[in-house]
Amino acid sequence: MALIVQKYGGTSVGTIDRMRNVAARMKRTRDDGNQVVAVVSAMSGITDKLIGMAKEFGDSPAERELDVLLATGEQQSIALVSMALHELGVKALSVTGRQAGIRTSGSHTRGRIEDIDPAFMKKSLDEGNSLVVAGFQGCTLDGMVHTLGRGGSDLTAIAVAAAIKADVCQILTDVDGVYTCDPRVVKNARKLPEISYDEMLELASSGAKIMQSRSVEFAKKYGVVFEVRSSLNDNPGTMVLEEHPAMENVVIRGVSIERSQARVTITNIPDEPGMSGKILGALADAEINIDMILSNTASDGLARHSFTMHSNDLGRAQAALKPVLADISEGAKVETEAGIAKLSCVGIGMRSHSGVAATMFKALGAQDINIGMISTSEIKIAVTVDETRIEDAARAVHDAFHLDQAPA
Amino acid sequence: MALIVQKYGGTSVGTIDRMRNVAARMKRTRDDGNQVVAVVSAMSGITDKLIGMAKEFGDSPAERELDVLLATGEQQSIALVSMALHELGVKALSVTGRQAGIRTSGSHTRGRIEDIDPAFMKKSLDEGNSLVVAGFQGCTLDGMVHTLGRGGSDLTAIAVAAAIKADVCQILTDVDGVYTCDPRVVKNARKLPEISYDEMLELASSGAKIMQSRSVEFAKKYGVVFEVRSSLNDNPGTMVLEEHPAMENVVIRGVSIERSQARVTITNIPDEPGMSGKILGALADAEINIDMILSNTASDGLARHSFTMHSNDLGRAQAALKPVLADISEGAKVETEAGIAKLSCVGIGMRSHSGVAATMFKALGAQDINIGMISTSEIKIAVTVDETRIEDAARAVHDAFHLDQAPA
Repeated sequence: MALIVQKYGGTSVGTIDRMRNVAARMKRTRDDGNQVVAVVSAMSGITDKLIGMAKEFGDSPAERELDVLLATGEQQSIALVSMALHELGVKALSVTGRQAGIRTSGSHTRGRIEDIDPAFMKKSLDEGNSLVVAGFQGCTLDGMVHTLGRGGSDLTAIAVAAAIKADVCQILTDVDGVYTCDPRVVKNARKLPEISYDEMLELASSGAKIMQSRSVEFAKKYGVVFEVRSSLNDNPGTMVLEEHPAMENVVIRGVSIERSQARVTITNIPDEPGMSGKILGALADAEINIDMILSNTASDGLARHSFTMHSNDLGRAQAALKPVLADISEGAKVETEAGIAKLSCVGIGMRSHSGVAATMFKALGAQDINIGMISTSEIKIAVTVDETRIEDAARAVHDAFHLDQAPA
Repeated sequence: MALIVQKYGGTSVGTIDRMRNVAARMKRTRDDGNQVVAVVSAMSGITDKLIGMAKEFGDSPAERELDVLLATGEQQSIALVSMALHELGVKALSVTGRQAGIRTSGSHTRGRIEDIDPAFMKKSLDEGNSLVVAGFQGCTLDGMVHTLGRGGSDLTAIAVAAAIKADVCQILTDVDGVYTCDPRVVKNARKLPEISYDEMLELASSGAKIMQSRSVEFAKKYGVVFEVRSSLNDNPGTMVLEEHPAMENVVIRGVSIERSQARVTITNIPDEPGMSGKILGALADAEINIDMILSNTASDGLARHSFTMHSNDLGRAQAALKPVLADISEGAKVETEAGIAKLSCVGIGMRSHSGVAATMFKALGAQDINIGMISTSEIKIAVTVDETRIEDAARAVHDAFHLDQAPA
């Protein structure tokens, strides 16, 4: 008998009939001899509707109250899915974030999970119940309602799995698993049977938006093995787990692409301490996420910084940089380039295999694809290319590393 | 400076604009130099919608889960009304039933308030906040969500007022106050400036459905002075409070009517102990509310029982009585009469004034209205009459006691 956590998103519980499907899957899992805990989101559409009502009272409703409002969405889901289980004769209880012992801290609308007291969940499981836990929500030490921000239900599922020592946590979603590349771009992309936390993290931060990084980080920190799989069928998905030696035999696990990127380059910066801090600080204050960062010093002693961001942020970035540049140097100039995309190759095998960059660049060169910026980590090589060529680039690199073929 | 609790029902918070009206009234109360705590219901329609969804999973959804589901309605209201207050520049916090410290016990969907820990509300008021508390809900000692059943938000308001030692509790509703009789029936009915708890209780149990009895009982038990007033204007309403000596000068405070009543009479019952218990027990088991009860013994030594109930319950009552009668005596017979109504005269002045029944019966006789059953309490005389004559009866009695004129 295994203890299994299953996470269902808003689409999976979006109608009464879909809730019945969730209940039926939970019952199958139970009939196979397992204990099951579902973590569910709000019915799709509800959260947007509630936000719409809140915005009637101004563009920036108080975040404390937004949390109180939005948490009702998941609370409705858990009650209804529990009823769907009862309809099938399955003994079940709903569990709010607070009842699940999910203690949070931090800002409203983006709470952090500090701790989980699983006492109520454990007792209820021991009494033979299946549980339906509200995702996306927790409760502060002094009893205030908190929500966890985007991807919060995944985080709840991972955290609950850690707290109740589940054998596995299934993230049921609209994709079949983690692929070697986006199958809409690379037709012969292959579903991975397993991937390490670190690779998943690099893919998540490189545009493969199956899960948010913090959920994967939480899983890694607490050693929660989780599986990304489809809510529409019973096919096995992709296991995400701590790396093991056999994983290093594969050089590249997957390729991800991220479109709509832009590059900002600032030239003629005096080569003095604190310049980078001023520039990046101004962008951080404007809440602009910077991705790749390059900086170097030219022979004239003046530095240049380049960084990438989502192209939607370009206008705000230019506005935020203007006063800073005026401050640091009269000669400092900003150049921008939109219409670029990022291609990342990820794999822990890179640590023990050389020549990865060479293979990648050769493959791109053979397709006449120009490389812009390059950045690397221990298990990733990322390059920018012209956005019009990103799909060609992905296919070329995918082929070059034979990612369509399962490793021997 | 006074501390004022205001209760707003579902219609008062039924739309975004009505929530704005609630916020505006709270702001006026605050601008007048008071502290204000609103207790709000779910937006009208929400509760029915949620119950409709629950019923998709069967006619009797688990009451524990129904509580979890329904409590979201009030939780949404408190968040949104708080935002409406912020929009007006009023510092405000939402407070769930649990955060208000409302500890409940008893069955799900009809919880009883056991205790209120006002610490969070007091602290928040001291910090200069107006509060918006969720009506209708509480939390058990072990953290389960509870709802309080019909009229639960009134009960919350009274209980919160008691716990925070409010100076007054305003029940804002769609009527202007408590009248000497229903103004739709008696055109010259007069709004009462004040009424005692006991009189309010007798009126509540006699068909004047402004508030549920248990809310009035709670107010009486804890000495909470409350005012029934309109949410649509600023007119003073009716204060409900412990009786004081001057109140006894008025013989009759008000007259109430209750239509759609039915009478059941059982004859030829052996005059032995336990017969009434069997008969009333069977009706209680069938969850039929009995109102007036008369019983006596005829010269032949056989007893007869009569009681009234809502005419909707008549069929179920007959079905419930059938096996009992077969059990107690072969000769026992049931007679029923629908199409009757009840007229009640209520007033604590009855205790010290004689001749009330005589005045009442004379007034009815003068209109040729036949009296059926009669029952009395220390402060009430109730009679049944033919339903077609109930309005005439109400007007006749209202006139006979000069209820249209304020007491000298």
